[in-house]
Amino acid sequence: MFECYRNIIEDSLIKLLRRANLSPILCESMEYSLIGGGKRIRPCLMLSVTEMLGGDLEKAIPFACALEMIHSYSLVHDDLPAMDNDDYRRGKLSCHKKYGEANGILAGDGLLTEAALILAEQEGYDDAKASILNSALIMVSGQSYDLNESAWSEELLHLLHLQKTGALFCAATTAGAYLAGRPELVPSFAELGKAIGLIFQITDDFLDAEKDALSKKLTFYTYYGKEKSLNYMKDQEAAALKIIEPFQNAASEELQKLIRSLADRKE
Amino acid sequence: MFECYRNIIEDSLIKLLRRANLSPILCESMEYSLIGGGKRIRPCLMLSVTEMLGGDLEKAIPFACALEMIHSYSLVHDDLPAMDNDDYRRGKLSCHKKYGEANGILAGDGLLTEAALILAEQEGYDDAKASILNSALIMVSGQSYDLNESAWSEELLHLLHLQKTGALFCAATTAGAYLAGRPELVPSFAELGKAIGLIFQITDDFLDAEKDALSKKLTFYTYYGKEKSLNYMKDQEAAALKIIEPFQNAASEELQKLIRSLADRKE
Repeated sequence: MFECYRNIIEDSLIKLLRRANLSPILCESMEYSLIGGGKRIRPCLMLSVTEMLGGDLEKAIPFACALEMIHSYSLVHDDLPAMDNDDYRRGKLSCHKKYGEANGILAGDGLLTEAALILAEQEGYDDAKASILNSALIMVSGQSYDLNESAWSEELLHLLHLQKTGALFCAATTAGAYLAGRPELVPSFAELGKAIGLIFQITDDFLDAEKDALSKKLTFYTYYGKEKSLNYMKDQEAAALKIIEPFQNAASEELQKLIRSLADRKE
Repeated sequence: MFECYRNIIEDSLIKLLRRANLSPILCESMEYSLIGGGKRIRPCLMLSVTEMLGGDLEKAIPFACALEMIHSYSLVHDDLPAMDNDDYRRGKLSCHKKYGEANGILAGDGLLTEAALILAEQEGYDDAKASILNSALIMVSGQSYDLNESAWSEELLHLLHLQKTGALFCAATTAGAYLAGRPELVPSFAELGKAIGLIFQITDDFLDAEKDALSKKLTFYTYYGKEKSLNYMKDQEAAALKIIEPFQNAASEELQKLIRSLADRKE
């Protein structure tokens, strides 16, 4: 089923990018950054939560795509020389290496604007829209903490990763609940999003452990060490599975599988 | 009356910037870029159009502030070293000179996201929201044309400035018409926005004529020369005044004054 969600997202992303009257290089650089290579975890998570809670999958698609565009813009700007200065992303040149730094800035701006415009064009679901855009703002704050705070603390460790990574996972799960017309579930589904975000982040930390140790990055691995990080991650996995336990259907089974595979991921 | 609009905008902008749980440096850099110094022409234009057409000024305020935040983010990113590389903006250090390049990128991202979030939080007026965000995308396209197109032509001259400058003026006038519940006026008010944008751009070109000639920038002044630019600008002024002629009230008088003062501006 996740494969099916992923195909829906890929098809829809390319259809939703508008081109009429827009600068060809802007369109090309936006498409280059958005299409090809992404795992689409956040939008698939939104679709699976929506479906698990009995919502209309069709209506959720543009919301999920907008979330993926926000994720994509954040990567483009994150890769810029003044930020992480990454030349490669998903095995190909990062946007600014391919199109130049100024076009990289504009491609990110364009993707964020396109995401907001797609949301504005959907009828209703104001709470889902606000939830996604509020998370987008929190994510920027997380990047800012990452950039400016140098005194390590357990509080900063959690704040930083809950904001930088957790916010968009939280957007996926809470928007899914809103889209399914279940606002009463939003508090627990915010916790679900945070837990999945932490699982994603900690497994990421494990995969990048060597690089992060060298660059003295504040991660769960570098702060807690291997064993404590792993235990903390397992706690998040259990918490996430518990939140979806009451929902027994095909979509919840797929979501369980996703959570387990994220906790177990090797890439 | 414009002074009154400006005061409303200044007060509302500072109130609308949220701070809770957000990185202090992000908040400070966003506020630094947004507050103090702007002429607030675009949001005041939106308020005056709304009022001229009998709309509810109170409801229009967050829309106008979102538009100003979009304008402000565009200046922050425009000033970046990879773009125009400007160290000063409105007589003070540009955002990236004050807070560093990475924080400048994030401040711009934050302002654009905040604008989209404020729009999403308003009830109704989906057409006004989409109109503003669509214009924001067109503006990015204009910046992309400016950056990437080097072969001068009359077509590029118009396309570039209608998109880069005109789009946000167009957003002000069309959103004003939507907010006043007059969608049938949107086509003519889009023309009004374009005309005012061109007046603003051409007077800007006159003010920067020496600098632009040195940097070989494609402007009305450098392409058309002094006299033809001035005549073209006067045509836009007449067209703009004609569009608002049918509306006879205090707000339309102020709007007339604004158009005349923009056509006549010396700073």
